This record gives sequence, structure tokens and C-alpha cells, in this order.
Amino acid sequence: MIETPSLVDQYCHGVLRTELGLGTFEAHLARTEGPPAPGTTFFDTQTGFAVRRWCPPLLGLEPHCPPARYLARRRELGVLETGRRLLRGSGITTYLVDTGPPGDLTGPGEMASAGEADAHEIVRLELLAEQVADTSGTAESFLANLAESVHGAAAHAVAFASVAGVRHGLALAPEPPGPGEVRGAAGRWLADRSVGGALTDPVLLRHLLWIAVASGRPLQLHAGAGESGPDTERTDPALLTGFARATAGLGTDLVLLHGYPYHRHAAQLAGAFPHVYADVGAALVRTGARAAAVLSEIMEPAPFGKLLFSSGARGLPELHVVGARLFREALARLLGTWVAEGAWSLADAQRVAEMIAAGNARRVYGLD
Amino acid sequence: MIETPSLVDQYCHGVLRTELGLGTFEAHLARTEGPPAPGTTFFDTQTGFAVRRWCPPLLGLEPHCPPARYLARRRELGVLETGRRLLRGSGITTYLVDTGPPGDLTGPGEMASAGEADAHEIVRLELLAEQVADTSGTAESFLANLAESVHGAAAHAVAFASVAGVRHGLALAPEPPGPGEVRGAAGRWLADRSVGGALTDPVLLRHLLWIAVASGRPLQLHAGAGESGPDTERTDPALLTGFARATAGLGTDLVLLHGYPYHRHAAQLAGAFPHVYADVGAALVRTGARAAAVLSEIMEPAPFGKLLFSSGARGLPELHVVGARLFREALARLLGTWVAEGAWSLADAQRVAEMIAAGNARRVYGLD
Amino acid sequence: MIETPSLVDQYCHGVLRTELGLGTFEAHLARTEGPPAPGTTFFDTQTGFAVRRWCPPLLGLEPHCPPARYLARRRELGVLETGRRLLRGSGITTYLVDTGPPGDLTGPGEMASAGEADAHEIVRLELLAEQVADTSGTAESFLANLAESVHGAAAHAVAFASVAGVRHGLALAPEPPGPGEVRGAAGRWLADRSVGGALTDPVLLRHLLWIAVASGRPLQLHAGAGESGPDTERTDPALLTGFARATAGLGTDLVLLHGYPYHRHAAQLAGAFPHVYADVGAALVRTGARAAAVLSEIMEPAPFGKLLFSSGARGLPELHVVGARLFREALARLLGTWVAEGAWSLADAQRVAEMIAAGNARRVYGLD
Repeated sequence: MIETPSLVDQYCHGVLRTELGLGTFEAHLARTEGPPAPGTTFFDTQTGFAVRRWCPPLLGLEPHCPPARYLARRRELGVLETGRRLLRGSGITTYLVDTGPPGDLTGPGEMASAGEADAHEIVRLELLAEQVADTSGTAESFLANLAESVHGAAAHAVAFASVAGVRHGLALAPEPPGPGEVRGAAGRWLADRSVGGALTDPVLLRHLLWIAVASGRPLQLHAGAGESGPDTERTDPALLTGFARATAGLGTDLVLLHGYPYHRHAAQLAGAFPHVYADVGAALVRTGARAAAVLSEIMEPAPFGKLLFSSGARGLPELHVVGARLFREALARLLGTWVAEGAWSLADAQRVAEMIAAGNARRVYGLD
Repeated sequence: MIETPSLVDQYCHGVLRTELGLGTFEAHLARTEGPPAPGTTFFDTQTGFAVRRWCPPLLGLEPHCPPARYLARRRELGVLETGRRLLRGSGITTYLVDTGPPGDLTGPGEMASAGEADAHEIVRLELLAEQVADTSGTAESFLANLAESVHGAAAHAVAFASVAGVRHGLALAPEPPGPGEVRGAAGRWLADRSVGGALTDPVLLRHLLWIAVASGRPLQLHAGAGESGPDTERTDPALLTGFARATAGLGTDLVLLHGYPYHRHAAQLAGAFPHVYADVGAALVRTGARAAAVLSEIMEPAPFGKLLFSSGARGLPELHVVGARLFREALARLLGTWVAEGAWSLADAQRVAEMIAAGNARRVYGLD
Repeated sequence: MIETPSLVDQYCHGVLRTELGLGTFEAHLARTEGPPAPGTTFFDTQTGFAVRRWCPPLLGLEPHCPPARYLARRRELGVLETGRRLLRGSGITTYLVDTGPPGDLTGPGEMASAGEADAHEIVRLELLAEQVADTSGTAESFLANLAESVHGAAAHAVAFASVAGVRHGLALAPEPPGPGEVRGAAGRWLADRSVGGALTDPVLLRHLLWIAVASGRPLQLHAGAGESGPDTERTDPALLTGFARATAGLGTDLVLLHGYPYHRHAAQLAGAFPHVYADVGAALVRTGARAAAVLSEIMEPAPFGKLLFSSGARGLPELHVVGARLFREALARLLGTWVAEGAWSLADAQRVAEMIAAGNARRVYGLD
């Protein structure tokens, strides 16, 4: 039996602090814009079924009990106690928490305490830049403050993350933009921008990513169709080949998040470039009963030292649970089958399991 | 045991009315241009093997009997009796029939009668436009007649379908073209066109699709490499993201047909947009012994309320049989496995099976 | 039990002539630029684990023994004896050997003798053109010599192969370039070129490929991410649709190599065009324990008469072994399962296995 006693969740978010009704809970089960179609529900998804499989027993209910029953029990326990029971039941021992997304989610400290685990911060680059813009007067001061701010964040963050960079910038041009180009873009953006305005300018995004590369902290890039919402046109990680080539040998690692449905392409890139890594977790939360199959595809082209577990969870501690349970069960089943077939040795399987579950992340992020 | 007593074939064509020789029959087993390569036969395909598995018993023969034996029995029974036995043996209870393609195929009424089933018409937009062009003198009258004709068809059709739209139009520009642009394109197309000439002008195709959207009837879009022949460059349903976004919230549903080998991308879009649905059937006919595997991939990212069975069959009633049998067996095996593993409850599995087999189609197309 | 007594390796390279240390051996286990990432090894890949499964027993060791133990035994036997034992243990009965790549690899004659097998030469087009350029003075003489050289090679080669053509040429424009365009490109290339300089000019590459098409010998095109290194942007075989259409009916077969991770697209093209074939082997060497799953995907859309086994091996005879063993075991398992499920008849399965293992290659390359 393949075991993974340590589990480093290399990319997740915090959880909501408020009590949830059925509709709000349901909305967090899908990565979509807009409500479910008439006559359908997001509970009828692989994610929904996986939540109903794994979470009710942690709250003292039967697996697959009806959503309304589950939500009632959740309110009965209260959001804090629910969070504690779920996070502690997930088996995750370290959380790397993206503090970027808007909304009142718990931070790394609260995650650590609720989950009885370690936790570290991932800094979202776009948000950092928007905060700097809110307090900078001119393009010159914005650019100076931005560099300083990224540099400062690198001292405490375990990694940087970028969501918009892939879609709006890197897929179009991998090289760092020139200083004049950057100043022009900064001037135009600041002039048009009201406080809190989002950064989608391709030149500034590329500039921001290259500052992050210079910091030496691992850079997590959202690819695939996960976080990015419906913009699936420019989310194939194969589009990052140029950026991977441009950053090769600079000493900064790139971690491709959310590759599904292009997860094989992400794993392929992780196999082609020494400094590129691929996430195996977020795809599993979304594919549920298919987790072992999706994981097996990711494990085809990438060296096993280049794959990292994550839950990709956001908002609901149920998603941390589902991410961890699906991963562990899928990995144990898959590697167990390969051992039974004689394709792998048991010692290799156990060793690879521990690498993907925790060891690779410890090495890449310098944990311990 | 998961069961699906009702089966709505949400996209198929009629069957040939003439007796078939071995060569003509074989030609309908593949979606290709040109004959099989020297030394090969289309019987040696997943589709060919699936036909030989499921159809001979319906005509009183052993499964996997040689093609020549099967064709002899077919001629012995005659095309009408063969069609009746096969269609009635398929288990399909409602056919939605695309009456667009050229060739002497049976229409919805004949399909209903031969198959002892319900049947409804799907109107092919390109054909409708070509018929309008054949009888319209000027660009102005063509455009006026076109709008009227689509509007009229919407009164009796259960859906519209478009084959060329994806390849020639939507992948390039999702928005509706302006009136001047449309008039210019119509003038040029009519001037160059002889009677029966095909509509491939990108501007007119986009105009046509937007008229159909305005009608409110579900719009079926051929994506993937199925119907479209060898034009695989522009058939990835991910290219429809822009059109999906442009039509969101207008009240018209889009149904993506033939997604294979991009079926995960189609299912992903169905998950990202409330008004987008994905077909699960046509891919199965073409992949035969792999049907459960392909179906399982489609069932990863899409909510289960967004998936619709079809056979995608054309010309041979054998393809309706194969589509239905492969789907039913694949679905029962897949969901049965998930139930056995504890990933799904049996009640959920039975409910989801009925949704994909018939319930979702009834809701989307307003059947009953 | 499905058996394949003959095995034609339709695309491979020779093996290294020198004794190998652990590092050199490891470097040949991956298709990547640069060393493994710090803290990782290419032995921890599907290919590495497959080598450790299949090869130690052929040298008298236990499966999965440590790499250092295996390398020590290899040196003990010597490179010649190791090569003989491995190649003779692979089960391959005919090698088609690409003699193009740089480096001191054994040629077809040595492969035949070491492996007690037949062997034939595949001529790499780019290398041929570079050799012609090294000895041609003017653009005119270069172009005349090039045509003569390709024509001459066609007399003894079983096939032509092109690596750069897909990436730099065909994906951008499928048609043959005009004579003036070719003369201009040749003049510019020769003027800038030092002896041995690589051919990457898109116009000359397309010209070269069209000369090869005119020769009538099968043309092997590298697609997918295999040989091509990290240039994954333009390696989707779907990009060859235009070239396939342009060469249809000319009497020359195209064979798509290395389709992974786009292997379904390659198989799809093989299904759409009578003269297009797809390789099933190289993907298996890279995916190891997943070989049956990857093979099953390739066997979805292509007629079974259009699929060809290869090892895609280069440098290490271990890779020929792994390619052959993985293929045989995956095929037997897959087809055996389909027979057990009733989806295929045993006679069909045995027949299809022999076609993919050897019969299709014999027909396409005119062996015997």
C-alpha cells in the first residue's frame, strides 16, 4: 500500500469566513461565470459528487447525503468548527496560500491554525501591482515602487503567482519589454485607471513577470482553463514554450498551474525544460471519479521530480479535502497497479509518491 | 445495473433508401474523402468492428460474422425490413433528424415509422440559405427572404444546425457582421454563384448564425473532426469561446457536436457557459471499443446536466444501432464502476444516466 | 493470447559505439535540452522505469535493479556484447534506420548484424541537403545537385525523413514554393552559410519536401514533441492538414512520427486521408507504464491498416528493447481485453496485431 504521510498543498487559497447557504456553496463548486443553466445544478458535477463522497463523514454524516442535509449540518457546527474538522481531516500538512484573490478569505496564519499545519504565503503579482498603482503618482514612481515591492515580497513569500500573465502577455510575446515601452504602457495605464482597476495591459504584465523572474522565487503561472474562467483560447501551456526558453538557465523555477484540459502539454513542458514544473492537483478536484485517469496522463511525459501536488482549493475547505483525498487515493491506486503489473518496483513507487506529495515541493520552495 | 429506458438521439440523419453493395456500405463507415488506402478497408476500424458486433444479431446472424455474409443477409431482407429491424433494435425512442445533407435519405416521418419512435426535424442553416439564394434575385431580397425563412423554420424545427459556420466563420470572428458588410458579401456571393452553389462566405455564415441565435431555437454547431471532413485545423471547439461569450445571456442554447478529438474542450466550454451544451454520442460511434474511455473524458469537466446523447448516424441504420448500444453500454459500465468504487451513489448514477440519455435533451429542445 | 512473431521497427536510429557512464546513459533517457533539474534524475521517468524493468533480465540481472548496478554490468559485458544481447532480445525482426542524426551511431548493416535482423536505410532530408550544400558552389548547382541527390537516394532508401520541415515549413504554408522563390532562398542561405550549417529556411525546407514527394518513397514527418525538442508550439500534426490535402492523390505516402501528446490528432489525419499513416511506437517508449493507454487512444480514429509500430529508439539499444516490449505487451493486453469483452473477435484481433506489428510496414515500404 503506497502511503503519503506528508502532503504539501503547493497552491491553494483560504476559506470563506461566513456561513453559507445552498446557493453560495454551490457557486463555489464550479469555475464558471454566471449561474447554473436552468434545470441544472453544480452539485451534479464531478466536483459536487466528490464533495458529497468525502466530506459528510468528516462532519458525522453518511457519504453522498443530500446537499441540503449537508448544508444544514454545516450551519449546525458553524463555519469555524466545520473548517477545523475539514482541514484537519484533509491530511494536508503544509499549505502554500495565494493571498491574492479578492474576497474575505482566511490567510496563511488562519489556515495553519485551523488545519493544525504549516502555512506560507504566495504573493499574487497582479494584485501587488494594482496596490502599488493605487499609491503611486507618476509612471516613474509606479515602476520604481513596483520593483521595490516585488523585491520586498520576495523576502517573505514562498512564491509569486500570476493569473492574467499567461492570457494577456506571455502567450503573445515571451521576451521582457524594453524600458521605453514599459514607461509608455505604465503612463497610459495609470492615466486611464481608477483606484482598484485591474492590470490587463500585456506590456506591464510581461514587465511584472520578468521582475518576478529576477527575484529568484518560484513563479507560478496559471495555464489551462481552471482559474482563468472561460478564456480558453490562450490557456494552452504549450503557448508558454517561448517564455520557458527565454527564462531557461536564469535560476528561477516556473510552476505551471491548472493545466487541464491541456495537462499533458504542461507535463510535457516540465519534461523539456529543467526549470519548469507542473501541478498535478487542481485538475483532480475538477474531475473527481476520473482523478486517477487524469493523474496518470500527467505522469506520462514529466520526470517524477517535476510534479507537485496542490488542491487548488478556494473558498470552501471541502475543496481542500477533496483535492487531498482524490490525489492520495488516485496516486495509491495508480502506483499500486503499476507495481502489481511489474512495471514499477514497490520501492520506486513509494519513493515517487512521497516526491510528488511533498518532497518536490519542499525542494522547489525551500521549505524546512 | 444502470438503465436508460428512454433514449433521445439529439442529432442524426436519415438512412439510405437503396440496396447497398459491400463498397457503398463500407464507404459509410468512415468520415473521409476518398477510398480506403490500397490494402486497407474501412471495415478494419473501430466503427467497422462495432457494426459487426452489434448488428448481425439483429438480423439473425452471429456477432462478428464476415462483412460479405452480413451484406448478403441485408440484401435478403431488403433495405426496408433491414432498416426496421435495426432501428427498432437500437433502443432509440426519439430521433432529432438533420434533413440538411444532400442525398436521398429518409426524413423524420420515415424514421419515426421505421423505428416506431418519435422524430423531429433539425434544419441545416447552410442548406436553407442556399435554397433561399436559388430563388432570390437581389442581395436585398435574398437577405429579407433569408431572415423570413429562418424565422419560419424556427416554428417547426426543434433546432438549427450549422456545419460550415465553425470552420469558415466563427473561429475567425465571433461578432455579428455589420449590415453594410453583409449586403456587400451577399451581393458578391450571389453574383458569383450558380444554382446550388455552397455557402462558404465567412461574413454570410456569421450573419446566418446570428439570425438563428435571434430565433431562440437551440443552435447545433459542428466542431471537432467529425462531420467536417479533413479540415481539422479550425475545428477545435475552444475556438468557439468568443462566440459563446458573445451569445451568453441571449436566451439561445448552443450545442457543440462532434467534438472528438477535442471532446474535452467541448465539455469544458459546456462547463464554462450556462448556455453551452456538449454532445457525447458521435465520438462513441467512431471509437467503438474505446467508447467508455472517451465518454469518461467528456464527463470530466461538464456538469452532467449539460451533456446530450446522439448517434450522429448518417445513411446506415447500423450507425444508429452502434451509437445507441455503445453509449448505453459505456454509460452503464462507467457509472457502475464509479458506484462500485464508492465515488458515486447508485441513485445519483441512475439519475445522471437518465439525464444524459434523454432528460437533458427533453429540457433543451422542449420535447414532450 | 495475441501474438506478433514479426516486428518491423519502422523508425529508429543506431546505437552508440562507446562505453557509457551513468551520466551519459541517463542523458539518453530523455528528449530534453539541458541536464536534469537539481535534485532530479531522468531515471525517475516512465522511460527510466521501463528500461529498468525490461533490460536487466536480458543481461542476467533482476528487473528494477539500481541504475549503477545495471551500468556496471553493461561495462562488464562491453558495449558490443550488451548491444547484441539487447537487440536480439527485443524481438524486432526488421529495423528501418534513420542515418541522419549527428554522432557516431551504428548504421543499418551493423544493426542487422548485432540484432540478427534485417535492416534498411531511411535518409534524413535535411542532412542530405546540408551535404549537397557543402559541395555546391552556386544556388543553381545546389538546386540541381539537390534534386539529383534526392532522386539517387530514393533508389536505395526505404523512406525519407524530415525533422525540421514540420516546424519551420509545412505548418506555415503547405504548397510547393515557386522556382524564383526557391532560387532566392538558396542564394541567401548559401551566402550566409558556413560548412555544416543547418537547414532551417522555410522555403528551402518546403522545396526539399516536395522533391521528396515527387520521388514516390514514403515520407516520414516528425510531428508531436518527440524528436523536436522543446519547440512544442508548431508540432501539432493537425497543422499538417494542409500539406496532407496538397499531396493527396500524388501516390506518395506520408507517415506521421512522434505524435505525442497530439497522437490522437495524428491518428485522426491517418483516418481522414488515404495516403497518411501514423506511428504508434515512439509515444510508448516515453510513456512506459501508460503504454497500453496511449496505444488505445491512437487506435481510436485511425483505420487499423494505417498504424505502424516503431521504437523511435536512438543511441541506447535499451530503447529498442523497451519500445518493442512495451508495444507487444500493450497491444496484447489491449486487444485481449477487447476480445474478452466481446467487442472484437479473436481472429480480428490477431489479424490487426500482425498488421500493426509488421504487415502494414511491409506493404507501405515495399519490404520482402
